[in-house]
Amino acid sequence: MQSKMRISQLNMMELLKDPKYEGFLDEFRCKQFAKGQLISVPGSDNNDVFIVVSGRTRVYLSYEGREFTLCYLEPGDIFSTHTRAFVEASKESALMLVSAKEFRTKINEYPEFSMIMTRILGDVLGSTFDIIDGLIFHDAKHRLIGFILSWGQETGKMCPEGLKFECDLSMEDIALMIGTTRQTASSLFNNLIRNGYLIREGRNTFVISRLADLKSLLEIKDN
Amino acid sequence: MQSKMRISQLNMMELLKDPKYEGFLDEFRCKQFAKGQLISVPGSDNNDVFIVVSGRTRVYLSYEGREFTLCYLEPGDIFSTHTRAFVEASKESALMLVSAKEFRTKINEYPEFSMIMTRILGDVLGSTFDIIDGLIFHDAKHRLIGFILSWGQETGKMCPEGLKFECDLSMEDIALMIGTTRQTASSLFNNLIRNGYLIREGRNTFVISRLADLKSLLEIKDN
Repeated sequence: MQSKMRISQLNMMELLKDPKYEGFLDEFRCKQFAKGQLISVPGSDNNDVFIVVSGRTRVYLSYEGREFTLCYLEPGDIFSTHTRAFVEASKESALMLVSAKEFRTKINEYPEFSMIMTRILGDVLGSTFDIIDGLIFHDAKHRLIGFILSWGQETGKMCPEGLKFECDLSMEDIALMIGTTRQTASSLFNNLIRNGYLIREGRNTFVISRLADLKSLLEIKDN
Repeated sequence: MQSKMRISQLNMMELLKDPKYEGFLDEFRCKQFAKGQLISVPGSDNNDVFIVVSGRTRVYLSYEGREFTLCYLEPGDIFSTHTRAFVEASKESALMLVSAKEFRTKINEYPEFSMIMTRILGDVLGSTFDIIDGLIFHDAKHRLIGFILSWGQETGKMCPEGLKFECDLSMEDIALMIGTTRQTASSLFNNLIRNGYLIREGRNTFVISRLADLKSLLEIKDN
């Protein structure tokens, strides 16, 4: 199941600190985006590669007013404005951008970087396969549990009550990731709380209190 | 809409004929697969990169006996055995394989090749976005029309009756690509024939007789 928490485990900002990449970011330009501002829309002439420096951006598909979130990009993630997806700043965000053409020149100058790009693209591809798997073979409940488990396991810490994690996404945000309505996501979520799998400790703090049981729910056939 | 006809426009076998890639294929080994034989299964220890030399292979997801075809690989296509997808020979096929480790060494030796890999991975990623878009926002009829149009436009030729193309996929094959049952795919397909959008000229020969009208069906909101 996709985490959608990070498109890749690789953090560009960390990687590019390596002295061998000195000068790599020289031609990148910085740009701030306000919360809610669109960074790129499909079909535009923009063809930039960008790295998220701070904030969070959302990559999503849209059709006739409906939306589906493919992933969130966090600091250190790299992506392109030249896809069929929309990208918007879901928090105030700072990006470093460079034209795709310039980026190709960069890769030629720093050939080791190409392996990183291949790995990242492979990671992203893997997570889109996960999304397709979830949509084709599973229901919204299964996808919600998959999302909670991956978010918890990637960001949480074990404590006496269970696996504690922070999640500042709204129910609407989660619904758009698992391909259902806010109402359905909310009712499925409350159901997990009511059945003791999940505890809400604060506005954005959750504890998976029955981790093994929650995992085993993924093995039960969807209705 | 995804074509699923080719994962990428780039033909490896053609590209690698360029004298600058002399020696690139040296460590690759050839292997034949009979029709129906599995080439790779998710979770196996195999981690190879392969190029299809002849035949056709199918890349698909599977869960509890159900399947969904992500794409077909044709001669010149490159892919990996190390994904969550199954790969099977849908015709008798010959592949050239090399370990992912050796492939990385190759890319270091032939740095120009890394741009090609980036482009191919970008193409594949684009087509998975198309698949997700189709699954989330459209119905099986829309996906079938998208498939027919892309197959026709990529492989067909204009003739007095319309856009003529060959397609040797079975109705089952098509159903597995558009995420529906064989019965539904068959009934949607016959409906297009009955309404004069499509003519079946022979077992594997079709003519899109009302190309503009068929395209315009994609603009009509799904029911």
